Amino acid sequence: MRRILASLPALARQRGPSTTPAWLLRQYASPQKAATATADQMPLRTGRPRLVILGSGWAAARLAHDIDPKLYDITMITPRNHMVFTPLLASTTVGTLEPRSVAVHMHDIQPALSSPSNALYIAEAEAVDPTSRTVTCRSADGVSFAVSYDKLAICTGSQGSTFGIPGVLEHAHFLRDVKQAESIRQRLIENLAKAGIPGRPLDEWQRLLHVVIVGGGPTGVEVAGELTDFIANELRKLYPERARGMRVTLVEARELLGSFDASLREYAARKLIRQGVVLRKGVVHEVTEREVVLKDGTVLPYGLCIWSTGVGPTPFTLSLPFAKTAVGRIAVDKFMRVLAPPPPPPSQQQEQPSGQAATSQGKGASNGSPSPSPSPDAGPSVPSILADESDTPPTSRLGPVPHVYALGDCCANPDAPLPALAQVAEQQGRYLARVLNDAAKGPVYGETSSAAALAQEFRYRHLGSMATVGGHSAVLELGDAQRRQLSLAGFLSWVAWRSAYLTRLGSIPKRLAVAFDWTVTLLFGRDLSRW
Amino acid sequence: MRRILASLPALARQRGPSTTPAWLLRQYASPQKAATATADQMPLRTGRPRLVILGSGWAAARLAHDIDPKLYDITMITPRNHMVFTPLLASTTVGTLEPRSVAVHMHDIQPALSSPSNALYIAEAEAVDPTSRTVTCRSADGVSFAVSYDKLAICTGSQGSTFGIPGVLEHAHFLRDVKQAESIRQRLIENLAKAGIPGRPLDEWQRLLHVVIVGGGPTGVEVAGELTDFIANELRKLYPERARGMRVTLVEARELLGSFDASLREYAARKLIRQGVVLRKGVVHEVTEREVVLKDGTVLPYGLCIWSTGVGPTPFTLSLPFAKTAVGRIAVDKFMRVLAPPPPPPSQQQEQPSGQAATSQGKGASNGSPSPSPSPDAGPSVPSILADESDTPPTSRLGPVPHVYALGDCCANPDAPLPALAQVAEQQGRYLARVLNDAAKGPVYGETSSAAALAQEFRYRHLGSMATVGGHSAVLELGDAQRRQLSLAGFLSWVAWRSAYLTRLGSIPKRLAVAFDWTVTLLFGRDLSRW
Repeated sequence: MRRILASLPALARQRGPSTTPAWLLRQYASPQKAATATADQMPLRTGRPRLVILGSGWAAARLAHDIDPKLYDITMITPRNHMVFTPLLASTTVGTLEPRSVAVHMHDIQPALSSPSNALYIAEAEAVDPTSRTVTCRSADGVSFAVSYDKLAICTGSQGSTFGIPGVLEHAHFLRDVKQAESIRQRLIENLAKAGIPGRPLDEWQRLLHVVIVGGGPTGVEVAGELTDFIANELRKLYPERARGMRVTLVEARELLGSFDASLREYAARKLIRQGVVLRKGVVHEVTEREVVLKDGTVLPYGLCIWSTGVGPTPFTLSLPFAKTAVGRIAVDKFMRVLAPPPPPPSQQQEQPSGQAATSQGKGASNGSPSPSPSPDAGPSVPSILADESDTPPTSRLGPVPHVYALGDCCANPDAPLPALAQVAEQQGRYLARVLNDAAKGPVYGETSSAAALAQEFRYRHLGSMATVGGHSAVLELGDAQRRQLSLAGFLSWVAWRSAYLTRLGSIPKRLAVAFDWTVTLLFGRDLSRW
Repeated sequence: MRRILASLPALARQRGPSTTPAWLLRQYASPQKAATATADQMPLRTGRPRLVILGSGWAAARLAHDIDPKLYDITMITPRNHMVFTPLLASTTVGTLEPRSVAVHMHDIQPALSSPSNALYIAEAEAVDPTSRTVTCRSADGVSFAVSYDKLAICTGSQGSTFGIPGVLEHAHFLRDVKQAESIRQRLIENLAKAGIPGRPLDEWQRLLHVVIVGGGPTGVEVAGELTDFIANELRKLYPERARGMRVTLVEARELLGSFDASLREYAARKLIRQGVVLRKGVVHEVTEREVVLKDGTVLPYGLCIWSTGVGPTPFTLSLPFAKTAVGRIAVDKFMRVLAPPPPPPSQQQEQPSGQAATSQGKGASNGSPSPSPSPDAGPSVPSILADESDTPPTSRLGPVPHVYALGDCCANPDAPLPALAQVAEQQGRYLARVLNDAAKGPVYGETSSAAALAQEFRYRHLGSMATVGGHSAVLELGDAQRRQLSLAGFLSWVAWRSAYLTRLGSIPKRLAVAFDWTVTLLFGRDLSRW
């Protein structure tokens, strides 16, 4: 303190404290300071049940947005302080949109996060202990701390899967968050600059200008489309010969846009080829620093390799003491409750429920668990990762872990697994928020309301799929595979794509930013500045 | 080639090549490809004199913008492909503006750069040989190449000076380009996140929230002002206690805003203090990972240290075989011609002018050098860095190096040195562009026109100085120290500051971007997303 006081400016002393702002002096002088400081370090307890949300993706953001802060104290734990609006991420790789325009800060999604009873911790969740109801976390600079929960929602998502192919992690660019999108953009422009250096050998020049995209799903297709737009517009103007030299190869093992209707798949393929994309059916064998090697022996020298294949479980998900599906996602029931193997034999049963009673029964009663399953199941499940994930036990043998839910990519209902889609995660987030809000609002906490909650299980409604393919066109289908309501391809669906996502963007300033970016790109082209 | 053909998609073959775009097939098949490729590698010679510009700052950008591409072939060599609009850089450190909004791509400044006779090489200039008239360059990935010039403009600027204080390079953040501004912003938000981690010791919490700015010039003051705005607005809303904990200390050895009028200096100081900035008169002794230590023993623990003191010469400038001023800037005469020590004794004189005649006389005649100095000086100057820079020889003993000019921070006229200001560099760029254009336009290349050029020497006109101090206010003075026309402080000058810079921004899209950023910041506040 004294040192800080000493550092008060000579100027201030001459004029007397009056010129120095009151709060500044108070901060230096008064002991309140400590109090102020620790408010950061120990969130207020209000008696409201504490909902802890892990993650900041679609499910987490939707849950945080819909949950009623008057009914729950909210604690978010995530390494990112923002939610990425993933459908527009591909557009940021070439600067059609600015990265910041598709990142929505958590406080814009749930303003109540800044109230002292709530918290947003920028940290990684490391472990969950359903017995003591605590989550262990670690901050970027290695500080470890524990957060206790009354309700826990695990929305930690998935990660890009390398399928164990060597070299992918080291050399390929994933496209899952803003940072990755930015590094793709910088790498692209960097390669263009390198290609312009005099005396560059021809084959090296061609390699630098070759972009290989692995994965023909919506992301891969959209990136390919954006790239061709970028080449046909900005690049053709600025560096005509480099624009001609640019090549985009899309490698897909199975079907381009597999999930889409055949007519749309054909449209997308024709469109991409017409725009100069080389579609290559094949399986990647290895990725080296400068080459993508396919199983059939084909060697594709590349300057930039974008990896947009399927997703897999994160190490955190795998480390959790819950039941997993065959592919390593957390097993949940139709109420999004996390499942775990049955409790241990009666011998231990004796003390456990009592111990549990002390810790949770009261809580359970006081915060209306929507999952008051029969007492044997209500007991804390003994942590155990299934030895062999390939044999997911029948759900019947599994019981829900009290007060623990999982949403989005990181989980699946073994009886009816859903694809890893933004709309799945978002609908699950909305569902859980409603369930929890109802449960807390219920006249008598617990039974009645949770019975109501139990009554309505989660039902996924597939709204449809969209993907841009470049050249102001997109493919769009409404409804699901069973009963398609509409399959549309071309400019109209491109307009639909843009307006749909623009209106779904979380915050108004971001909507404005996206609209602004689109306009500037349209009128003046994309920006190639690089640093 | 065959391999690439093989990689043509099955799909394309089914539909026949017609579906594959013509240019794509041509590119694969025809030998033109090679030609296309090498166009990148050897710019077209048009017989026009080649003007080589080193750098992409104020001087270089202005010169590139004003030079007539019909009179000169332009080759720009710079590690950055954009020009940074430095007066607005401070605003990007807290997100009042987005970094990209203050970066103007070189092609937007001089569109002719994309014509085959011109080139923009993203590389570092490593050496200049006035005898063979070549510049040796190295690309980011280590490819070395040479570029020959008929006219050379060295605008490589300066670099932040550490004054040999230990730890500055390792731990402090400079604020000279967009990348540095972004890393300051990310570090600031990162520290706020760290401070929010539970169980953080109080002194550590205070350290993380302490920003130390070293240097009380316009940049330092503007950053301090931006920070207090950020604290008072966004931070106070989102993290009240962290906002209270935030401290900004500005360390200055001499005078705050030394170049400004006393009344304005006082206004700025009072304003900053009222906003909570601690002004500290002192000299930095050392910067460690977590502390700034002053000569008087004061220790300032910091979470973020911004270094905005004076500038010094770059290694490249020092390595050049030309005369230097006492502080290591390239010595130039009043025509911005680079000076060098006199040619060697008559003994060597004999062959040298003849050799020179072969290489340059013809050129000199064919591209109108504005500097046809008496033949002894016209000879190539023998490279030599002055042993001891402190004794700059009297200009009289120095002679101009033919066809080599220097502009901006990297140079100075020993008789009348100018401060390292954007407006100095820009005026010099405009001057040289006019001189070169006139010279090339001259009826008879060479003498007459260059005589005209000689007639008008460079004269600097100080337009005034501006600096924002936060809280919608700024200090502004027009005219120079001798005859001040206006000294204004407060909201009005803040409006003037904004409109002045907005209108001076190089490209229209960037003006729109800045206006948009300002509006969003005003209406919705600054964005705290971090990655």
